[in-house]
Amino acid sequence: MGRGRFIVFEGCDGSGKSTQARLLAASLDARLTREPGDTPAGVRIRSLLLDHSPEGASLNIRTEALLMAADRAQHVAEVIEPTLANGRDVVCDRYLASSVAYQGYGRGLDPSEIAQLSGWATQGLLPDLVVLLRVPVDVVLGRLRAGGGLDRLESEGRAFFERVSRGFDQQAASDPARWLVVDGTGPVDAIASAVSRAVASLSIS
Amino acid sequence: MGRGRFIVFEGCDGSGKSTQARLLAASLDARLTREPGDTPAGVRIRSLLLDHSPEGASLNIRTEALLMAADRAQHVAEVIEPTLANGRDVVCDRYLASSVAYQGYGRGLDPSEIAQLSGWATQGLLPDLVVLLRVPVDVVLGRLRAGGGLDRLESEGRAFFERVSRGFDQQAASDPARWLVVDGTGPVDAIASAVSRAVASLSIS
Repeated sequence: MGRGRFIVFEGCDGSGKSTQARLLAASLDARLTREPGDTPAGVRIRSLLLDHSPEGASLNIRTEALLMAADRAQHVAEVIEPTLANGRDVVCDRYLASSVAYQGYGRGLDPSEIAQLSGWATQGLLPDLVVLLRVPVDVVLGRLRAGGGLDRLESEGRAFFERVSRGFDQQAASDPARWLVVDGTGPVDAIASAVSRAVASLSIS
Repeated sequence: MGRGRFIVFEGCDGSGKSTQARLLAASLDARLTREPGDTPAGVRIRSLLLDHSPEGASLNIRTEALLMAADRAQHVAEVIEPTLANGRDVVCDRYLASSVAYQGYGRGLDPSEIAQLSGWATQGLLPDLVVLLRVPVDVVLGRLRAGGGLDRLESEGRAFFERVSRGFDQQAASDPARWLVVDGTGPVDAIASAVSRAVASLSIS
């Protein structure tokens, strides 16, 4: 039995990546997971990260980046790596590139230091395929507003999401063999088909 | 007004460092603090780290190291750096060297990677003086047993504490100008006097 494939969806909040991750996982009978928070320890880390309470509001940006990396280390060790080793595919909603985009490009920490931190946390585990769902920042902001309450990470405004969006684009551009960039404003079915084709070609190679 | 002095106590569990930290902080009217856990976010991180619950028991060692670093980043940003900048001394019970000794030497991660992680978390803030209270491992184990329940980090046994103890010794040996090594089995008053003399010479230099 071969090793499972590791496929990650990335993009801004409201880009539709959670929907696409769910569709792909169902079609592959893959393990669907997400970051942050898909382990018992991760649930507690996630609540610390997303909290509106006074201690959440004053979280230092390095603390935030280190908590994200801690969640990722646990996620890889407890869920992702054992599932892949067991021969099952893993579809993950956000991974390393989200930290680089949000904590690096978005909040102004050095993107290469954030990548290095996650590389240490994950012992270098990279996805076989990263699907980036690109959506204009106006659409991101509109979808977030329509969805009701913005959490702490999402309430940062237009300039923040423009930096995050650029952070995703630059990561995709620097590793085109691993990244599939898709227009997230298209119909859900068309996007799902494009993703499925990319995954199929992955299994042949 | 000058910047405060930053003095850290290090050593194995049961070495008496918390007692000495308290005595020195009282004599200097310094801010007494400790790691992990002396911020609101840190309290939640500490409970994750020291937990006996199922998720605590299965914490990956990299997760543990990253949580320690996250706690330290928050502690420096919220407590240590503002207090020092305000001209007040800070006395801290454990800091960077504990992570290097416990997660590095004790649990087998690369000690220099752990030091680098904390260096990133703290933006390079090092103590002006580190006091290492050396106690034979037999004494450490005896004091821990006498004190009742060992927590998860403390229930690792003799070989673990021998590695941790060596980790402290090697850090002290590699930076003798910053470290004061004291025999922790001596009388409390004598140790406190030796520490006070070292702090006094620090303020002259």
